[in-house]
Amino acid sequence: MRTTVGIVGGGPAGLLLARMLHRAGVDCVVLESRTREYVEHRQRAGMLEQGTVDALRACGAADRLEAQGLVHRGIELRFAGERHRIDFPALTGGRTVTIYAQTEIVKDLVGLQLAEGPPLLFEAEALAVEKPDSDAPVVRFRHEGREQTLACDWVAGCDGFHGVSRRAFPAATSRTYARDYPYSWLGILADVPPSCEELIYARGERGFALHSMRSPSVSRLYLQVPNGTDAADWSDERIWDELAARFAIDADWTLARGPITAKSVTPMRSHVHEPMRHGRLLLAGDAAHIVPPTGAKGLNLAVSDVSVLARALTEVHRTGSTQLIDRYSELCLSRVWQATRFSYDMTRMLHAQPNGDAFESRMQLARLRRITASRHAAAELAANYTGPPLAV
Amino acid sequence: MRTTVGIVGGGPAGLLLARMLHRAGVDCVVLESRTREYVEHRQRAGMLEQGTVDALRACGAADRLEAQGLVHRGIELRFAGERHRIDFPALTGGRTVTIYAQTEIVKDLVGLQLAEGPPLLFEAEALAVEKPDSDAPVVRFRHEGREQTLACDWVAGCDGFHGVSRRAFPAATSRTYARDYPYSWLGILADVPPSCEELIYARGERGFALHSMRSPSVSRLYLQVPNGTDAADWSDERIWDELAARFAIDADWTLARGPITAKSVTPMRSHVHEPMRHGRLLLAGDAAHIVPPTGAKGLNLAVSDVSVLARALTEVHRTGSTQLIDRYSELCLSRVWQATRFSYDMTRMLHAQPNGDAFESRMQLARLRRITASRHAAAELAANYTGPPLAV
Repeated sequence: MRTTVGIVGGGPAGLLLARMLHRAGVDCVVLESRTREYVEHRQRAGMLEQGTVDALRACGAADRLEAQGLVHRGIELRFAGERHRIDFPALTGGRTVTIYAQTEIVKDLVGLQLAEGPPLLFEAEALAVEKPDSDAPVVRFRHEGREQTLACDWVAGCDGFHGVSRRAFPAATSRTYARDYPYSWLGILADVPPSCEELIYARGERGFALHSMRSPSVSRLYLQVPNGTDAADWSDERIWDELAARFAIDADWTLARGPITAKSVTPMRSHVHEPMRHGRLLLAGDAAHIVPPTGAKGLNLAVSDVSVLARALTEVHRTGSTQLIDRYSELCLSRVWQATRFSYDMTRMLHAQPNGDAFESRMQLARLRRITASRHAAAELAANYTGPPLAV
Repeated sequence: MRTTVGIVGGGPAGLLLARMLHRAGVDCVVLESRTREYVEHRQRAGMLEQGTVDALRACGAADRLEAQGLVHRGIELRFAGERHRIDFPALTGGRTVTIYAQTEIVKDLVGLQLAEGPPLLFEAEALAVEKPDSDAPVVRFRHEGREQTLACDWVAGCDGFHGVSRRAFPAATSRTYARDYPYSWLGILADVPPSCEELIYARGERGFALHSMRSPSVSRLYLQVPNGTDAADWSDERIWDELAARFAIDADWTLARGPITAKSVTPMRSHVHEPMRHGRLLLAGDAAHIVPPTGAKGLNLAVSDVSVLARALTEVHRTGSTQLIDRYSELCLSRVWQATRFSYDMTRMLHAQPNGDAFESRMQLARLRRITASRHAAAELAANYTGPPLAV
């Protein structure tokens, strides 16, 4: 098989890149190792920056998002018995975010791609990206019981943190920056209307909690838990009790409970791989960088990466100019590092210290109080949260 | 001996408090363990927030400061081969800072106090503050070869980090928050005109450096050095070479060298003691809190504390009302924690990681780049650096 752009990975990064390239008239093939059923039900993020919504709309993939997405104009910070709202439009000159689950974006993009092309192969497991520094890179993959090759002009590595693409980068010119955090998130989906209209970020001595939602009838909530926690050790009742305790604020506010339909534990990690390009292999999304979910940046960074990448590959294809693709790594990493910084700061500001470091705990309170006292500090949070416009 | 307010410590906090009380008609006595010669030549900070200048002016202690102080309208951040100016007035609605050495403030206040009273005893070593929870606290001290007592209505503990006042707080109701940093500052005074008009904060892989000044003819410079560094191991030539390497930016800029007249190593520490009041004993300045010097907040916090304290003690004296003094600790600590946060963040953003943590190093660059890219981030730095108005 051969194509212009071989896309390894059919998550939101790979699928959106394929959609963008397809509309620009650039041939591509997407190889996804899992089944359609699996990728359409993988629970992930759900907070879209305005630039992400704009990018999906621009490639005709936002019909359902626009009908069902919940536009949010702020978040609530809850700490020390107080609640403070961060008003995004007022602080950023009108920017908002939209709640719409990543898994729904994947469904939308899979549907479009199967209807309109380009080729999307499920259960096509990439084994290696070969000859990335030549003019003719190859993706070796296993599909329908046999090994095959996809010959390409360019390869986009959109295969996530555990994918094979990153392994094709030579160690000598690669650098990895990483940070593990001493806590994880226990996340649940519950069939109950959210107890809030906007997200609540709650910091307290018991640990961090986040109240989010997927729709007007489905709540998504998270609890900070120790690393190594087994979700099976948390009964539904224990989860609701702990959530209620962490969100407790006053008599007027109660947490609505309902049937829990999913329960999982996610570790927290920051990870950046530099550079994001080696020859004709380009990484995008989680394949190149991971952020802890506190800043809700993972999906948005993936969309930002592939927006630049689609534009750059289209430019090469149409004009032969490598001007933009030569700046791909630099353009993406500038945004990646800012999102990494923001995610790190949000994570550190909101999670209880497992070692009980009282000084750090006071620093958290001082940061939160500064955000509630200073318009500039609040505007910084709002600007980072809603995200800058896309680079291209 | 007896007085209304016994002031333990004749540094800037104790002296300024005495000046303020004296002008408000409240009796006080200052006990200073060292000689006049010693306190007038102790090298300390030199960056005054506008509120600090205002406080000194309001009590008639700013004549020389106004004649000789250097008004600064910004600082320079130097990193990754770039230089960026933070314009204070433009970012804060007109606020500036003033360069005038703490040791000169001490001289001014000592001169005023010896000329106009109240009593200031040198070589009067406080031994203990006794009965602070009674109506008649006592300061026991040694002076002219014998132990004496100072009976007071109130005691102000202005005797610094190593003073005796804090020890009179009961352990059961006291709490200490502390952080040591894995580096120190080697500071020099040099008889050479500064190579810059405003302070330069330089971050680089070799370590942090700060270019400051005392006057148009005296430079004050600092180098980040490992903890445990002996200043004697640093020859003048080595110091200038290292400073030149850390400030190096382009061919147009050179560091002027000159005779080094003082050289010392200071460890970096954050420390906050809560509460700041126990009965009739009130802590102010370094006796209650220490910040690393990166944010230039130590002296300014001391002035802020005693401004509140003078007002509160005057209110008690004039009207018998304890309304303000009952809020003393809370009012001061709010500002103290913000300054502690700012000093911590500045310190972490600018110092090289002794353990070579590459992720943290990238976080520093991302923070610095954000400050240069976002007006809100720059305004936050400027607002914190120039300081909020005094609380009362």
